[in-house]
Amino acid sequence: MSNDEIGVTYRLETSGDIAALAAKIAADQSTGTFTELPGETEEVQARCAARVVAISDLPDAAVPSIPDPDGTGPYHRADVVIAYPLEAVGTDIAALMTITIGGVYAVRGLSGIRVMDIELPDAWSCHPGPQFGIPGSRRLTGVESGPILASIIKPSLGLLPSETAAVVRQLCEAGVDFIKDDEKLMNPGYSSLADRVAAIMPVIKDHEQKTGKKVMYAFGISSADPDTMMRNHDLVVEAGGNAAVLNINSIGYGGMSFLRKRSKLCLHAHRNGWDILTRHPGLGMEFRAYQKIWRLLGVDQFQINGIRAKYWEPDESFVRSFHDLAAPIFTETDRALPVVCSGQWGGQAVETYRRTGRTLDLMYLGGGGIHGHPMGAAAGVRAIRQAWNAAELDVELDDHAKKHPELAAALAKWG
Amino acid sequence: MSNDEIGVTYRLETSGDIAALAAKIAADQSTGTFTELPGETEEVQARCAARVVAISDLPDAAVPSIPDPDGTGPYHRADVVIAYPLEAVGTDIAALMTITIGGVYAVRGLSGIRVMDIELPDAWSCHPGPQFGIPGSRRLTGVESGPILASIIKPSLGLLPSETAAVVRQLCEAGVDFIKDDEKLMNPGYSSLADRVAAIMPVIKDHEQKTGKKVMYAFGISSADPDTMMRNHDLVVEAGGNAAVLNINSIGYGGMSFLRKRSKLCLHAHRNGWDILTRHPGLGMEFRAYQKIWRLLGVDQFQINGIRAKYWEPDESFVRSFHDLAAPIFTETDRALPVVCSGQWGGQAVETYRRTGRTLDLMYLGGGGIHGHPMGAAAGVRAIRQAWNAAELDVELDDHAKKHPELAAALAKWG
Repeated sequence: MSNDEIGVTYRLETSGDIAALAAKIAADQSTGTFTELPGETEEVQARCAARVVAISDLPDAAVPSIPDPDGTGPYHRADVVIAYPLEAVGTDIAALMTITIGGVYAVRGLSGIRVMDIELPDAWSCHPGPQFGIPGSRRLTGVESGPILASIIKPSLGLLPSETAAVVRQLCEAGVDFIKDDEKLMNPGYSSLADRVAAIMPVIKDHEQKTGKKVMYAFGISSADPDTMMRNHDLVVEAGGNAAVLNINSIGYGGMSFLRKRSKLCLHAHRNGWDILTRHPGLGMEFRAYQKIWRLLGVDQFQINGIRAKYWEPDESFVRSFHDLAAPIFTETDRALPVVCSGQWGGQAVETYRRTGRTLDLMYLGGGGIHGHPMGAAAGVRAIRQAWNAAELDVELDDHAKKHPELAAALAKWG
Repeated sequence: MSNDEIGVTYRLETSGDIAALAAKIAADQSTGTFTELPGETEEVQARCAARVVAISDLPDAAVPSIPDPDGTGPYHRADVVIAYPLEAVGTDIAALMTITIGGVYAVRGLSGIRVMDIELPDAWSCHPGPQFGIPGSRRLTGVESGPILASIIKPSLGLLPSETAAVVRQLCEAGVDFIKDDEKLMNPGYSSLADRVAAIMPVIKDHEQKTGKKVMYAFGISSADPDTMMRNHDLVVEAGGNAAVLNINSIGYGGMSFLRKRSKLCLHAHRNGWDILTRHPGLGMEFRAYQKIWRLLGVDQFQINGIRAKYWEPDESFVRSFHDLAAPIFTETDRALPVVCSGQWGGQAVETYRRTGRTLDLMYLGGGGIHGHPMGAAAGVRAIRQAWNAAELDVELDDHAKKHPELAAALAKWG
């Protein structure tokens, strides 16, 4: 791949010929009609011609990813790299998605297609990337080393602002570094963002005055309307807040781009909705490709589930996601902080540490694992810190728990 | 469904119990953790409790939509309606997508999920909807009745602005009502939007002066950055243009919402990228649900392929899409103009007319079908008008072609 091309890797599946399908995909980006045309000169085609760079065969599949009414397998599979001229795509994310991804999903003759990766030339470093990222998250939370220990309001939904504030106080006193609204909590009638900010920020400030520790609270400011989202952002900033939860798919590239340029908040991304793009292994998009776009747009902290998550995602997928986030696109500073979450209570810390490159550059988020600890939330926080100490010391949890009653209690309940 | 609820219909598939899965989905929207919690009172749950309204069983499937490593079919299927309290969701599209769709895609224990429809209460009529829609498209093009006849620049990509302008002149003289940039053409190095507007608008104006007819030209103004997209919009408006092509998935809800509030242009939507959400019949989202959101956001004209399209989409799916667009959400004015396109040359006019409710409220877009007509583009336009006359007269194309040589030539080439 040259530095004036964009490379996209597709996992293709077809009962026909893979090389022919790859060539058709590359050609469709420059002509795209069903009949021969006047004016379709070589010179015209050269300005935007995509080219097939590599085809790596994979084993055939017996069953097609998309049901095939003609039923004529086997289904050939390959990872195909196609290079697009930067001249034709430019550096706009809308152009990238339209030319190299959206159109390809519509091509006839395939029974499966998954975007595996996107390789971007240096010109794409023009995008803002994370404003805070890993160093900014550490600075704002005051956590110089080790995992940033996070929690979420539980019950997730249905609490009045005053009830939420009481949970925030409990979590601050329990010793967490970060608290967030559930991603499904934005601006409902029973708990408007304005009322929530007004109820919660005094608790955060009070705790800071007493202890010197400012807990980072990420408010759910998402709106499909960027003007509304900016008003939400301003509410949080004016009250002294420093973070926000964003449902990135629900605001779209436009919402994220608009906010990032103006944002004073650390942006914590929830990828709610992403699952439908990735749950079928033969269809959609790998997180590796997906996260690059959102990091360029400015995500500071990225939720990626965890080991033994409560959702469908297999552990291997989470581990890959973690490594994806750890890899620079252009520079170290375009990395987003991995947020390990979903069903986490500390019991997964050692395995997480061992499988993700033995790094402590992460946020570890316990919801039920803190609120539901049999000895209370403060013990839940201590149990998780103990579990991460075990990880760092490279000892087994069961051994470590012998001297740490909170961890022992968590293991007894969930282990 | 009461008027203070939002109803979402899901096509669920599971090797387990459908009713249990439906109940879990409803419950996950209000609690959503893996362990029992203090504070999870009935009062708290009631504020945002979703409820299962209906379960309509469908035949079992032998093969799961998402591969099932445990391999324990049969896979039960049903259409399940879940009602969400308006109080909990509000009227923001980001909240709707996050609460009722995004989270549901992540639930464990399902082997297939497809969002079939979204039923919105009156409070959702607060959204702007189309600014021009069908009456505005007719007014701006001067086409009082019958299909609005449209074309696209061909070759789609790779032409310099001056070469594009020459194609525009040819199409104007051929008698089309509407011309558009290919959706993949936005702002490439070889044909910037500014240069294209500067080259094309004088041709549109010159043709208007000579003939009194202002051809609507839709420029590709999409950008993932709403500020850039507004500058693109302003370029078109200042040059006297009146329409734009938008790649709606590539700009996202935020981009569309931002633009619509400020737009002076008729917004022609291309749903590039939508295919991956809908191509597998057991996964993703039906166009019926999808198009409602984008109409509320302000789409005026909606591309939906056509009979015998060049892409994967079956004819039945196109026909359903057409009817979806024809159905008001709240009022007649929230309808978007259906744009019938992809591989169209007139030969599909009679069947389209008969299968879509015998309406002429549509745009019919021929690309290769006009540019590639053996007697030239003007004959291509006449052939398509002749085909639609046959449709309206309810006669067969072959019979009609006996007195219409342009249609006969098209039939000879593509029929």
